[in-house]
Amino acid sequence: MSVITIERKVLEKNDEVARQNREFFRRQRILVLNIVSSPGAGKTSILECALEELAGSLKVGVIEGDVQTDLDARRVERYQVPVVQIVTNGGCHLEAKLVQDAVGRMDLEGLELLIIENVGNLVCPANFDLGEAMKIVVVSTTEGDDKPLKYPEMFRRASVLIINKIDLAPYLSSDPAALRRNALRINPGLRVFETSCTTRAGIAELCTWLNSVTGYYCTNLNLPTSTSESD
Amino acid sequence: MSVITIERKVLEKNDEVARQNREFFRRQRILVLNIVSSPGAGKTSILECALEELAGSLKVGVIEGDVQTDLDARRVERYQVPVVQIVTNGGCHLEAKLVQDAVGRMDLEGLELLIIENVGNLVCPANFDLGEAMKIVVVSTTEGDDKPLKYPEMFRRASVLIINKIDLAPYLSSDPAALRRNALRINPGLRVFETSCTTRAGIAELCTWLNSVTGYYCTNLNLPTSTSESD
Repeated sequence: MSVITIERKVLEKNDEVARQNREFFRRQRILVLNIVSSPGAGKTSILECALEELAGSLKVGVIEGDVQTDLDARRVERYQVPVVQIVTNGGCHLEAKLVQDAVGRMDLEGLELLIIENVGNLVCPANFDLGEAMKIVVVSTTEGDDKPLKYPEMFRRASVLIINKIDLAPYLSSDPAALRRNALRINPGLRVFETSCTTRAGIAELCTWLNSVTGYYCTNLNLPTSTSESD
Repeated sequence: MSVITIERKVLEKNDEVARQNREFFRRQRILVLNIVSSPGAGKTSILECALEELAGSLKVGVIEGDVQTDLDARRVERYQVPVVQIVTNGGCHLEAKLVQDAVGRMDLEGLELLIIENVGNLVCPANFDLGEAMKIVVVSTTEGDDKPLKYPEMFRRASVLIINKIDLAPYLSSDPAALRRNALRINPGLRVFETSCTTRAGIAELCTWLNSVTGYYCTNLNLPTSTSESD
C-alpha cells in the first residue's frame, strides 16, 4: 500500500514540474511535442525527415531521451538544430524534471517548436506529463494492427497518431487500416498520418501540419484555454 | 531517497517470490522461459509457430502477459495447450507473484516446458526475475540494428536472442548482421537464432534447440548448479 502512495507522490511531483514547464514554454511561445513509441518504430527517422523538410521555415529544437547512448542526438545534430541528449541510465521514461534540466542547457533563441523524443516504450511514458502541448504516438505497420487495443493508455493520451513504415505494408499480414480503426476505437479524436521514411510518403503532409499547428499555437497563446487543447 | 528504498524493497520482495517459483519449477521438472521484446516484435507469432512444431514431442504450457486484452491467450489456446492470461491493467512488466498466481490456476500435469510471454517492453521487464531458467529476447529486423546498444540491460540478462522478421531484411536499411554484432558486444554469451514466422525460416532450428534444452534440463536437475545456468 505504501508503494502506491509513493508512486502517487512521484506522479504528483512530476505533474507539478510539468505545469512549470508548460507555463515556461507558453511564455517562450514554443510549441512542445512529446513523441512516444515502442523501440524501433521510427521516431528518430521521422524526426530526421521532418528536420530536413522544415529547414528554413521553422526553428526547431530537439531533446533526445534514451536509456543508453547518444546515438540519436548525433543523428539529429547533423541537421544543425539545437539538441540535448538525456540518458536515463536504465530509466524507462522521461520525467518533467529531466526535460526542465535539458531545456536549461539549450539555446532557445528564436525557437518555435521543441520536439522531445521519449524513451522507446509504449507503456510507462504515458503516465509522465513533460509539460508538452501534445503527445504524438508512432506505431510502425510491422508491429501489428492490435497494438492500440493492447496498449490503450498511450493512444488515449495522444493527440496524433503516425502510422510509420507504410512502405512495408505489402509484405505484412497486418493491416494499416485495421490499426487505424483500432486506434480510433480507443481515441476517436486522434489525428492520423501515414508515413514512410524510406519513400518519404506522408512526410510533406506531416510537415505542413507541423508548420500550421506551430504557427497557430504561437499566435493564439493569449487565449484562456488549456495549452493541451491548442490545436 | 525514500522512493529508491521502496523500489529496492519491491525488487527484493519480487526476488524472494522468484526464488520460490524457481524452486517450485525445479521440483516439478518444468523448464521455464521468459520471452521479452518490444511490442510487436513477434513473440506471440514465434510462440504459435513453436507450438505447432513442438506438438506431440513436448508438453508445453503458456502464460500470456499483456497490459490489456486476452487477444494473445486466445491465439495460443487454439493449439490445445494450457494457457493463462495475465492482464496487468497498465502495469509495464510481469512480476513473480503474478506468475505464481497464474501457475496456481494452470494444469501442470505432465508439463515439461512453460513459456511466459512478458508484456511488450524492452526496458522494465529486465529488472523483474519471474523464476525462469532463462530469458529469451526477441528483436525484429524492422526495429533497427542499434537496439542492443540503446537497451542493453535486457540483452545483458538474456541467454538467447531471436532476430525475427528476417524475411523483411531485404526491404530495410538496417542490417541483421550488425544487430547480431551489437547484441554480442553487450553479451557475448548470447545464443542467436534468426527466424521468420511468414516463411518459417529458422523455426525448426529453434524448436530443435527447445526440445534438446528441455530434455537436458529435465534430466540434469539433480546437479548442484544454479537453474539459470542449466543450458
